[in-house]
Amino acid sequence: MDFIAVDWGSTRFRAWSMGADGDVLDSVESDTGLKAVEGGRFEAALMTACGDWLARDPGLPVLMSGMVGSRAGWKEAPYCLCPADLAAVTADALRFEVAGHPAAILPGATCDDALGHADVMRGEEVQIFGAAGLLGVEDAVICIPGTHSKWARLEGGRLAGFETHMTGEIFALLRNQSLVGALAEGDADDPAAFRDGLTHGMAAPLAHAAFAARADALRGTLPATSISAFLSGVLIGAELARRPEADEVVLMATGILAERYGAALDHVGAQVRFVDAKDATRAGQVRAAATLWPERVPA
Amino acid sequence: MDFIAVDWGSTRFRAWSMGADGDVLDSVESDTGLKAVEGGRFEAALMTACGDWLARDPGLPVLMSGMVGSRAGWKEAPYCLCPADLAAVTADALRFEVAGHPAAILPGATCDDALGHADVMRGEEVQIFGAAGLLGVEDAVICIPGTHSKWARLEGGRLAGFETHMTGEIFALLRNQSLVGALAEGDADDPAAFRDGLTHGMAAPLAHAAFAARADALRGTLPATSISAFLSGVLIGAELARRPEADEVVLMATGILAERYGAALDHVGAQVRFVDAKDATRAGQVRAAATLWPERVPA
Repeated sequence: MDFIAVDWGSTRFRAWSMGADGDVLDSVESDTGLKAVEGGRFEAALMTACGDWLARDPGLPVLMSGMVGSRAGWKEAPYCLCPADLAAVTADALRFEVAGHPAAILPGATCDDALGHADVMRGEEVQIFGAAGLLGVEDAVICIPGTHSKWARLEGGRLAGFETHMTGEIFALLRNQSLVGALAEGDADDPAAFRDGLTHGMAAPLAHAAFAARADALRGTLPATSISAFLSGVLIGAELARRPEADEVVLMATGILAERYGAALDHVGAQVRFVDAKDATRAGQVRAAATLWPERVPA
Repeated sequence: MDFIAVDWGSTRFRAWSMGADGDVLDSVESDTGLKAVEGGRFEAALMTACGDWLARDPGLPVLMSGMVGSRAGWKEAPYCLCPADLAAVTADALRFEVAGHPAAILPGATCDDALGHADVMRGEEVQIFGAAGLLGVEDAVICIPGTHSKWARLEGGRLAGFETHMTGEIFALLRNQSLVGALAEGDADDPAAFRDGLTHGMAAPLAHAAFAARADALRGTLPATSISAFLSGVLIGAELARRPEADEVVLMATGILAERYGAALDHVGAQVRFVDAKDATRAGQVRAAATLWPERVPA
């Protein structure tokens, strides 16, 4: 083993025992997200998951990324300010010891947008550098859809800046808790309704475009079973309307999100290059570990 | 008494005993909104509230507006299609009898927006015609802020069209149930934070601008006690960014909404003319009743 890679978020815990050349020797995944850890017993939770691996090699380092470094996580690792390359991010890692093992928590990243407001990410920064490594690119626009979708610009190997859209979270709130979602039946896919929502979301302000799902349903032009797909289109359309200029977008998504963002990007004429999020996480952690512990992890 | 005016919504019941010249002889207001009426006993609920008035005059008409005419209300009154003047709206009223009294439910209004989607309102149409009567205008842009804010265009005395923004509902969802609101403490007013949110909401897409409240708070540039005001600014800014062109806006709001929309409209250089929503409802119902029952209600 070279090191242990941990992706520790609010609801999920994932760890990999990494060998030379970035190959995965073993892995664990559980629901022991940060919220499930009681009384601040993060070290005990880590030992429960990875203690066997650690026992085998007293010098084995542990690299962690994700919300584990947030204020609500194990130890707060202050954000690294963009533009930042991987070396700058790892230089800001929070380093400490766990049961005698060298450990580090990556700091996440922050940037200031053109309008004078901050943006933040935790965990996606390692995925972005990992995707760049996997694809062998130094310049890219990378989209990571989700609860809080990220649009990142990689320029000359540096994370130049990024923009968060609360697309997934607002979709879930509207679908499950609003007067628009109250008319919806199920969440079946409906590519035509999705595309219709997409063009509406790209053209009209979100708070108006979303209401069309209710109005169209009441007027009888949108079936209750298509409201969910239409709303998804509205939300993704609003996000895509203000995306960074790019002929190609690196899309880190699987399942329905991969399908929908793929279709949406195709609709606006962008080429899509898919990267698996877990692969990107591991690849980024190997790159970061090689910087942090060059004597243990080959670059 | 000339007629009984009822404004019956999902959560509130309001009724006025109206005399000649539109003066209010008596009024009742209660929590017996439509949702509180069990087993479809709407007539019994109306009699409980207004039975004494009805008993005094066997021919007394009852005019109702609001969600009472929706699918989830007493009787569904299909929407009147815009452009529509008051006569067109009253012509589409659903007329029936309640305990021998002539009764009517106003139909609400619907329109098709420039993007081919429907919009709907119930209850606001009577407020819009009422406001026009109170102000003596035939052309106006009228804003009715709330859960679902309405921006209506009155042209030559006709309701030409309107646009709904889910501003209040999305604000409440973000404030009370999102990861942005989770960082907020209280809902104190903060004019500077509100104005900051306003300019951000006017410039950036809603799902991104709202996230700035979280990012700024995590970076330490927005106090937790100012998040609510900032978010309110973002939501209202997003609404105002796409308002109809107008030098003057008729604003139907009271309290904090009147303050915030007033400040926001002032910020964008629009003149504001306030109209009280209850006054507008009654004035609109007097105009509608005069059309429906000219033998009883003087125009």
